[in-house]
Amino acid sequence: MRIGDLSRETGVSVASIKYYLREGLLPPGERTSPNQARYDEAHVRRLRLIRALVDVGGLSIAGTRTVLAAVEDPHVSLHDALGTAQAAVMTRTEPVEDDAAARAEQAVAALIERRGWITNERNPGWRTAVDVLATLERLGGEKVAGLLDVYAEAMEAVAPHEVEAVVVDEDRERSVERMVVGIVLGGALMTALRGMAEASVSAHRSGQAAADRAG
Amino acid sequence: MRIGDLSRETGVSVASIKYYLREGLLPPGERTSPNQARYDEAHVRRLRLIRALVDVGGLSIAGTRTVLAAVEDPHVSLHDALGTAQAAVMTRTEPVEDDAAARAEQAVAALIERRGWITNERNPGWRTAVDVLATLERLGGEKVAGLLDVYAEAMEAVAPHEVEAVVVDEDRERSVERMVVGIVLGGALMTALRGMAEASVSAHRSGQAAADRAG
Repeated sequence: MRIGDLSRETGVSVASIKYYLREGLLPPGERTSPNQARYDEAHVRRLRLIRALVDVGGLSIAGTRTVLAAVEDPHVSLHDALGTAQAAVMTRTEPVEDDAAARAEQAVAALIERRGWITNERNPGWRTAVDVLATLERLGGEKVAGLLDVYAEAMEAVAPHEVEAVVVDEDRERSVERMVVGIVLGGALMTALRGMAEASVSAHRSGQAAADRAG
Repeated sequence: MRIGDLSRETGVSVASIKYYLREGLLPPGERTSPNQARYDEAHVRRLRLIRALVDVGGLSIAGTRTVLAAVEDPHVSLHDALGTAQAAVMTRTEPVEDDAAARAEQAVAALIERRGWITNERNPGWRTAVDVLATLERLGGEKVAGLLDVYAEAMEAVAPHEVEAVVVDEDRERSVERMVVGIVLGGALMTALRGMAEASVSAHRSGQAAADRAG
């Protein structure tokens, strides 16, 4: 099919398709003339995946490129693809070296030890957790930082189910694709439910006026 | 202080400061000459807040603008500011009307009913949850969609603690600022811990070779 057909089939504008081609997220079509190319079902599938990751999952273009590379590379194991998908949904910052960062490092190391998690400093979550805790301390958010074990316990409850749900037994590329979708969209789903669960708690606290709005 | 001093004090480049001024995230300084302005401690504080939300929390510029407007507007209640902060961490998409979307609508309505949550369609989490569930169905991620109650239970466990931690008793602007920081960074912290908890589960499953890497 031509680019216009691909656009109609997927509901993605021609301008966006060209952007994804330029950014290397969508593989080029088969060139049929100097300014025309032919696309196939693999492009339709890839476009749907890109839109799910970017629009629904909230991934950056760079993050999407990284996870798609893991989908395509036959040497990336399922375990490593899981780490790549998780890194893509996390923020990354330049580390700041101050007392807050030093305390945050210790807090994360102690947490891992206390929970008995098999992980280490190379996991992108480690660095992100340190950055977030240090930033919370710098901005006076110690009460939220104090929820470290509350969050850890909730994620321990979720993790085995999520890993079970995303590790599927199909050909490698399909399996990695499903894992990436599961990790990215599972996170977006949890954030959506968090918003409603907290609105509900807040409505209880604020009384009926707020409950009527329940925003 | 001049813009150069503001940059040194906060570690944010002059170019970034000018960008935040143009985007309306940082209020203008007091003009002292046609091409110079004076900044004060409120600007230092605001810049640190912007960097925390954008770099560590992963908010978009538009999302940051919305939550900062809630911080500044004395008519926005704590309950509504909570909703604004939560909306900022969620993705928003153009709704698609198909069978998957209709089933997702029903699944979310049934979930809210089953959990007894005080919330409704106006909560941004409702729309996001519907979009994510429908997208998961379209991409073959039904197993992850099947974790709806696992996610809901985890968020129910977290929500009262989070609301308690972010609702503080100071002047309104300071309270809303802390709430926004808590919601945005608390979410980033949870995502980081999710990454480590899942790497740990995956390492157990994949055996020692993966555990050594523990990526």
